[in-house]
Amino acid sequence: MYPKSLQQLIEKFRLLPGVGEKTAERYALTIMNLEKDEVEQFSNALMDVKNKIHTCSCCGNLTENEVCDICADPSRNKKIICVVQEAKDILAIERMREYRGVYHVLGGVISTNKGILPSDLNIQSLNDRIDETTEEVIIATNPTLEGETTALYLGKILKDKTNVTRLAHGLPMGGHLDYTDELTLSKAMENRQKL
Amino acid sequence: MYPKSLQQLIEKFRLLPGVGEKTAERYALTIMNLEKDEVEQFSNALMDVKNKIHTCSCCGNLTENEVCDICADPSRNKKIICVVQEAKDILAIERMREYRGVYHVLGGVISTNKGILPSDLNIQSLNDRIDETTEEVIIATNPTLEGETTALYLGKILKDKTNVTRLAHGLPMGGHLDYTDELTLSKAMENRQKL
Repeated sequence: MYPKSLQQLIEKFRLLPGVGEKTAERYALTIMNLEKDEVEQFSNALMDVKNKIHTCSCCGNLTENEVCDICADPSRNKKIICVVQEAKDILAIERMREYRGVYHVLGGVISTNKGILPSDLNIQSLNDRIDETTEEVIIATNPTLEGETTALYLGKILKDKTNVTRLAHGLPMGGHLDYTDELTLSKAMENRQKL
Repeated sequence: MYPKSLQQLIEKFRLLPGVGEKTAERYALTIMNLEKDEVEQFSNALMDVKNKIHTCSCCGNLTENEVCDICADPSRNKKIICVVQEAKDILAIERMREYRGVYHVLGGVISTNKGILPSDLNIQSLNDRIDETTEEVIIATNPTLEGETTALYLGKILKDKTNVTRLAHGLPMGGHLDYTDELTLSKAMENRQKL
């Protein structure tokens, strides 16, 4: 048996997704070999995240302030709202450095399997944000069954108020045709464009 | 970009072995969704490990006390010393619940590749522990090239003082002959025993 404090740390690491006994043990032994300063920073970083981070009161993005950096940025176009499942999807879109509108985080997708209803998501707050100045709502949920269901649902309830669009489906760049699944290929064929 | 405190936690998780950007991100987002109590315990467990755990002054095992539980246990046979590479190997041997002797942790193995010399390991302290009462030293380094080299080295310097033995090499239990590598099979053949 490991000493008590080491055993406790191993148990804590097991709270992380996909971490089993062996990995948790390896992580805990690594901590033992780190510099004391480093461990102290790690320890503080854990508490900081829990104490300082919350969701933006406007869009649901993660922030340390009342509203997030994107909502607070006057250069962003508030008339275009991109709807994503999770806050981390915002990062993916930001990495492309092209989109200049704002976001809205649903906090999940509609799922009959998991019993997640539209009322469990931040859909009411999205609806409240949309007014006559809103030019477009871009639905950027994942291209999964549940993501599509949610996109269709949002399209239905919002299309009378504003333009609602959905990210295109098709061949991923750099992919190979013979490795592409039938559904993606059929979508790519359906949405083919004139050159 | 994530808020600063979240970014910091992601960086800290990246210090763990085999953890890349995506995994660190997933870990940090999981922390955000844990109960505050749980995160506080996690944070404290990190510091506790760094502050309380050190190596046993006798055998090099991990402990919160001056000597480890095994060295302090009067029911253990101090005349038999099992030599392991790392403290975590002690756990593997303890799990079998058969060995009743004590241990000695080398803290690594001799490696010409990595420039690890005998003087970098806890070999002197092992030598000092061995006296006329010592009945046997069991070398339990890993069955790798470096583990074997270390075992041979220890055998050479200790064999005049006491009995030195090495864990047997052979077929792993539950394995299949056709999946066994040549070296293991040849060792199993060489060490075959009368039924």
